[in-house]
Amino acid sequence: MLNINPARMMTDLRTLAEFGKHGTGVNRRSLTNEDIAARSWLLERMQAGGLEAQIDGLGNVVGRTPGCKRYLLIGSHTDTVPKGGWLDGAMGVIFGLELARAWVEMKTGGETGIEVVSFNDEEGRFAALLGSSVFCGKRSIATLAHLYAADNSLSLSEALGKAGYADREFVSLDLNRHIAYLEAHIEQGPVLEQQGKTIGIVTEIVGVARAQVIFTGRADHAGTTPMGLRQDAAAALFEFAVEFAKYCRSLDSPQTVWNLGQVRFDPGAYNVVTREAVLGIEYRDGSTVVLDQIDGFISVCAKRCAERHNVEWRVQSGVRTTPAGMDRSLMARIEAAAAALDEPCIRMSSGAGHDAMMFADQIPTGMLFVPSRGGLSHSIAEDTREEDIVSGLKVLAQVVDGLVNIGRG
Amino acid sequence: MLNINPARMMTDLRTLAEFGKHGTGVNRRSLTNEDIAARSWLLERMQAGGLEAQIDGLGNVVGRTPGCKRYLLIGSHTDTVPKGGWLDGAMGVIFGLELARAWVEMKTGGETGIEVVSFNDEEGRFAALLGSSVFCGKRSIATLAHLYAADNSLSLSEALGKAGYADREFVSLDLNRHIAYLEAHIEQGPVLEQQGKTIGIVTEIVGVARAQVIFTGRADHAGTTPMGLRQDAAAALFEFAVEFAKYCRSLDSPQTVWNLGQVRFDPGAYNVVTREAVLGIEYRDGSTVVLDQIDGFISVCAKRCAERHNVEWRVQSGVRTTPAGMDRSLMARIEAAAAALDEPCIRMSSGAGHDAMMFADQIPTGMLFVPSRGGLSHSIAEDTREEDIVSGLKVLAQVVDGLVNIGRG
Repeated sequence: MLNINPARMMTDLRTLAEFGKHGTGVNRRSLTNEDIAARSWLLERMQAGGLEAQIDGLGNVVGRTPGCKRYLLIGSHTDTVPKGGWLDGAMGVIFGLELARAWVEMKTGGETGIEVVSFNDEEGRFAALLGSSVFCGKRSIATLAHLYAADNSLSLSEALGKAGYADREFVSLDLNRHIAYLEAHIEQGPVLEQQGKTIGIVTEIVGVARAQVIFTGRADHAGTTPMGLRQDAAAALFEFAVEFAKYCRSLDSPQTVWNLGQVRFDPGAYNVVTREAVLGIEYRDGSTVVLDQIDGFISVCAKRCAERHNVEWRVQSGVRTTPAGMDRSLMARIEAAAAALDEPCIRMSSGAGHDAMMFADQIPTGMLFVPSRGGLSHSIAEDTREEDIVSGLKVLAQVVDGLVNIGRG
Repeated sequence: MLNINPARMMTDLRTLAEFGKHGTGVNRRSLTNEDIAARSWLLERMQAGGLEAQIDGLGNVVGRTPGCKRYLLIGSHTDTVPKGGWLDGAMGVIFGLELARAWVEMKTGGETGIEVVSFNDEEGRFAALLGSSVFCGKRSIATLAHLYAADNSLSLSEALGKAGYADREFVSLDLNRHIAYLEAHIEQGPVLEQQGKTIGIVTEIVGVARAQVIFTGRADHAGTTPMGLRQDAAAALFEFAVEFAKYCRSLDSPQTVWNLGQVRFDPGAYNVVTREAVLGIEYRDGSTVVLDQIDGFISVCAKRCAERHNVEWRVQSGVRTTPAGMDRSLMARIEAAAAALDEPCIRMSSGAGHDAMMFADQIPTGMLFVPSRGGLSHSIAEDTREEDIVSGLKVLAQVVDGLVNIGRG
């Protein structure tokens, strides 16, 4: 068995949280000075643990147990959203570090080692899932180099140059070398806490789709224009919103979630009939079929509501990610490990995106969640009880033990 | 019969439109240089027509036929909204000027004369219905002097001083002198045009009520928070909006109009459940009972929608004006005059507010409308066909003739 050291892991996790510390949280956007310092520290911790480590040309920090033919990849990210939490991403990386160190300390060698990775810019200062998408060959650095930081006039290539990472080699996914990808993460939602579970076994990362529905009517005096002569874009939008929610509820798909969180009226006045009403919609599901169904409904419903109010309508599709199913045998291994350690667990989908999304169609990919206090994340209030963090590490260690021992004597 | 001169009236109306001319419209906010110049011009036109005329301490321009015991008041306003039209208000004032001049030109004298008035700031640069409300004793200048212009850091008392009107006497409504108030106005809506009528007989000026409904829920991650655990303020607002419109349609009150034209979501993001959703509501009706009914429904419905989504709710009542019924005998006189002149007319309520509102509970008050092209107003595109303007003047002249002749030999 891997002889993990939970106290050492917690110390590293707390030390990492000092880089960009912001109250009880962390402000460590990708390729800021704080983030670069954290990457250097992580590199040193990997080397101190006996790993062959490097920061590659994209800022991904990669360390591996020496001398193995195959590697189990374990990772996540160490960048944060602005004024984010101390665990989102960081926990999964430090778990990987602890497991790889424990592997080295066993001194038994073996064909299958551990490769731990901190992917750059999961949170999208330049582009969401930047490091993992390039690692997996889904995007090329050539198409990304020109991207500018949302909070700065700095391009990605300039930022990589400033950090000293430019011109370095890129570490990539190698289907002959990497046998699987594992990522531990905080849940970022309230389910585990509310159900009293310590481990969430991720069944899939949902696909996220966005659309804008735009109704265009006519601005009229809201006192002198009889109701029957109006072309009220707002009235069409309100009815669309209610019918959309009713439709989504009617889907026999309890994991479907949706949000109608953005709305804009023009001219937006008490006494003027609304000329243009724009609704921003986001919906998530683990099934492409369900996302397609919702997609189709949006147009049907927008047309119906527009006709009822004699207004024009159009739908603008936004970003859409494909649902990423986790590997069933890894799910079973996590479940067995949790049972062996007497940790209450449930299977659940991930409503948020993760680096694991990039791997799911290439190598067996698994994720486990630990509870988030109050369901909070992307906030300095983000937290998880220490015993739950340690439980997550122990369950992951048991899974990893089973996987890396396959290749050992 | 009063011997009106439509060509002279049209010339004056077009000359007035030169003050603050803005494309096809007029930009002549109360007490701007353009507005002050227009008042001086109007004063001169009154005097040239043989009227005893003055600009009072509030900027109201008042002219009366000399030597009468009683006066029929005819008026409206000559200030405009920013980038407004050339007829809104101006037409009613110039009609009064033409009728008073015609009265003087008859040289027959008489106990009942005509008093024409242009009320200052109907459009509310400082306060809506400023001139007529003070004229009618409904507001005192003392409580208004400190009001600042919405578009400038100038107070009303400073603006009156700058114009040279400060310290002048105020002309007021005198129940012993003023026998009735008549106001001609453009409809500012599409009804007359759509029904092919030239004269609208106003039955009442509707009351206008405003309210804000505020739902407060909780901001949550819109991917990781299951639907059943959300406190979505936006969802409550959408359902409220649809149920409110359904309720208003169900009222057996075809003149009721409403507008849900202002909405604000916080944080207003695709991927965050809405914490606070604010809806601005305006509703108008000629009956206080109906306004009260709608008022009551708002709270009932807000509570119901809030409870359904586990959010807090509150209603903030805004301004509310009382419906102003027009005098039945004046309505009959306008109808008879239109019939005699073969002008197609209908009775209709006014969805917009007018200076006439201030008079309706004090002296017999009547209004007539002429069509607005495309129903447009408060816009430089505002217009009315010249023959419709002249028809309005002729019908009004016939009504006035009947009223002022009462006191003549």
